[in-house]
Amino acid sequence: MQRALIEAEKAIAQEEVPIGAVIVDALTGELVAVAHNEMEGQKDPTAHAELLVIQKACAETGQGRLSNCDIYVTLEPCPMCAQAISFARLRRLYFGAYDIKGGGVNHGARIFNATSCHHIPEVIGGIEEHACAKLLTDFFEKKR
Amino acid sequence: MQRALIEAEKAIAQEEVPIGAVIVDALTGELVAVAHNEMEGQKDPTAHAELLVIQKACAETGQGRLSNCDIYVTLEPCPMCAQAISFARLRRLYFGAYDIKGGGVNHGARIFNATSCHHIPEVIGGIEEHACAKLLTDFFEKKR
Repeated sequence: MQRALIEAEKAIAQEEVPIGAVIVDALTGELVAVAHNEMEGQKDPTAHAELLVIQKACAETGQGRLSNCDIYVTLEPCPMCAQAISFARLRRLYFGAYDIKGGGVNHGARIFNATSCHHIPEVIGGIEEHACAKLLTDFFEKKR
Repeated sequence: MQRALIEAEKAIAQEEVPIGAVIVDALTGELVAVAHNEMEGQKDPTAHAELLVIQKACAETGQGRLSNCDIYVTLEPCPMCAQAISFARLRRLYFGAYDIKGGGVNHGARIFNATSCHHIPEVIGGIEEHACAKLLTDFFEKKR
């Protein structure tokens, strides 16, 4: 999660909402891909850190399924990203801050609770929660 | 929807599941972007027709919001794509076949019904339903 926080901090320099994500090979511990939110720069509402890191990890490994990998994200994924995590067959999802308004794991559409969700990763939320949330609150306070 | 069906047919030649999507400027009627499912070729589980067409339309227009545009898809979008359609602020979603197993609009996570879903497009399902569904059933029958 420290590495995901570093990615999130990089986003700030680009005036992007600070959300970072990394994918790690769970067997070797090696870093497979890193990404941060790029919605502003790419003018693309789908350029969330999680989608980008999954796309990078698939390109890196040449595989559409990342069953031996875990994803770390600084914020609870939205429904779009939660579904992408399921499609990518990621083994575990570790996330930092909870997202009451936009989250799709513990909140809102609760993607993994749908009976039609074929792959449900193990979910561990609240990792480095304070640091992950502080990056976001500081960012939006400065924006005001 | 005819144009989306043509896109879906293109997918077959590439041994991709035949799902096509187009985005149209609702004011001028002009085609903004077209795409089909590219999950196999890209080895990317997020390379659904809808995500690809949204990404192309945003790149084409230089805008992250497509409020004046409508999307046509041959199959009911999954939860990932339904959420992306909401994020892109698309005005209307027209889709062909209903997807009982994987759909996220009328089935499963029912993305647009979540109270946390900020933008809900107008949804018209069942357009050219038979032709859209037949492409898929024929494709999977041949696969067996």
